Amino acid sequence: MRFMTTPDNAPDASAEPTSVAAQDWAKASVDPQYRAAVVDLLGALAYGELAAFERLAEDAKLAPTLTDKAELAKMASAEFHHFERLRDRLAEIGTEPTEAMEPFVAAYDSFHRQTAPSDWLEGLVKAYVGDSIASDFYREVASRLDADTRGLVLAVLDDTGHASFAVEKVRAAIDADPRVGGRLALWARRLMGEALSQSQRVVAERDALSTMLVGGVADGFDLAEVGKMFTRITEAHTKRMAALGLAA
Amino acid sequence: MRFMTTPDNAPDASAEPTSVAAQDWAKASVDPQYRAAVVDLLGALAYGELAAFERLAEDAKLAPTLTDKAELAKMASAEFHHFERLRDRLAEIGTEPTEAMEPFVAAYDSFHRQTAPSDWLEGLVKAYVGDSIASDFYREVASRLDADTRGLVLAVLDDTGHASFAVEKVRAAIDADPRVGGRLALWARRLMGEALSQSQRVVAERDALSTMLVGGVADGFDLAEVGKMFTRITEAHTKRMAALGLAA
Repeated sequence: MRFMTTPDNAPDASAEPTSVAAQDWAKASVDPQYRAAVVDLLGALAYGELAAFERLAEDAKLAPTLTDKAELAKMASAEFHHFERLRDRLAEIGTEPTEAMEPFVAAYDSFHRQTAPSDWLEGLVKAYVGDSIASDFYREVASRLDADTRGLVLAVLDDTGHASFAVEKVRAAIDADPRVGGRLALWARRLMGEALSQSQRVVAERDALSTMLVGGVADGFDLAEVGKMFTRITEAHTKRMAALGLAA
Repeated sequence: MRFMTTPDNAPDASAEPTSVAAQDWAKASVDPQYRAAVVDLLGALAYGELAAFERLAEDAKLAPTLTDKAELAKMASAEFHHFERLRDRLAEIGTEPTEAMEPFVAAYDSFHRQTAPSDWLEGLVKAYVGDSIASDFYREVASRLDADTRGLVLAVLDDTGHASFAVEKVRAAIDADPRVGGRLALWARRLMGEALSQSQRVVAERDALSTMLVGGVADGFDLAEVGKMFTRITEAHTKRMAALGLAA
């Protein structure tokens, strides 16, 4: 397992954010609030992977060639295997996976409904953006987790990055017709805006999860810290889009 | 590897159908017609799996619960892995997988377009019927293949049967409302009719493949034998539907 370094601009250690990291699940889960937060986290990630599977498989229909179709199908299948691992872990810790996922269904479904790609390139950008944001989020959250849960999250993270093929295709399309870049830049902004809006909805509704995300304590969390995390993820997104030739 | 018994009503051995079975790929593929037939077969199976992946993933959207959705997604993912194995084998024997699949795209796409399920139960019946027909076909063809190709086909076959969960669900729905049985019986007939019609199109267009399917020789094949194979597969389908409570 790789060791994850804490981001430079991590929140203050006032709420002892590293104490849980030194514990295993058996010890950390004695705290009911921590337990609830992890169930929320795994439920949110699991449904996110299942929803991603479904959308990538659907977007594969837009592929111009069989090879492209197979690439997107491969990503979809990888997301499904992430889903399986997260779901199995939920069952292992004695939670009904469906119940853990239910609270997050509306947010993901809204996101995907609002961001159905209208062509293959939009589908590729969405696959790449989604994959990257998921990686960033896994990294942010890993350092706040007990050793067992962190192991799972990092294992799933290690297995992402299937979207790199998308980068090459998008670059080639922009080279061939620079106007495509402008359209896709708007699209990438819309994706990020919709992702943030759905995330904020989840944060507002799921106290235990939000508290853990910012390394908070049981009696409340600092909304400003959640905002900072979103800012870091948005900045990373903006840099990636610029590198891709899409001014965000 | 399991040993596959030859069906009781297998075609006559007039065209030495077992001679290839005793050979490995290196030896058998010296015959250009046999080679072309295997490339066709693997191409047809590969695109069939990729198309099945796509449709099952899409049909997962009709699932009434997250558990059901996950079950169909699991089948879809299994089909994708079959696709990968078949595609990799095509590359291994020096064929461009896309080229091998292309001749079969129209038939599969037409089949799926004509048989888009309108609800979850139709989706389940389609998953079960599709999985079963695929197994029957793999079994029919296995005995006519060289040892290496047979090994691959049997390995993919061993890994099917994900649709058994569908049986339970369909039974329960018919128990709850017997009228559902009548509707689904019509649907199953339509599925089989459409599958046969597309298969016959393929048989008419792909001589080398068709010749091999009936254990024929290089200078032609017996159309009656193809018909017998279709009849065996249709009969097995009818029995399965009856067992499921669907009078075909």
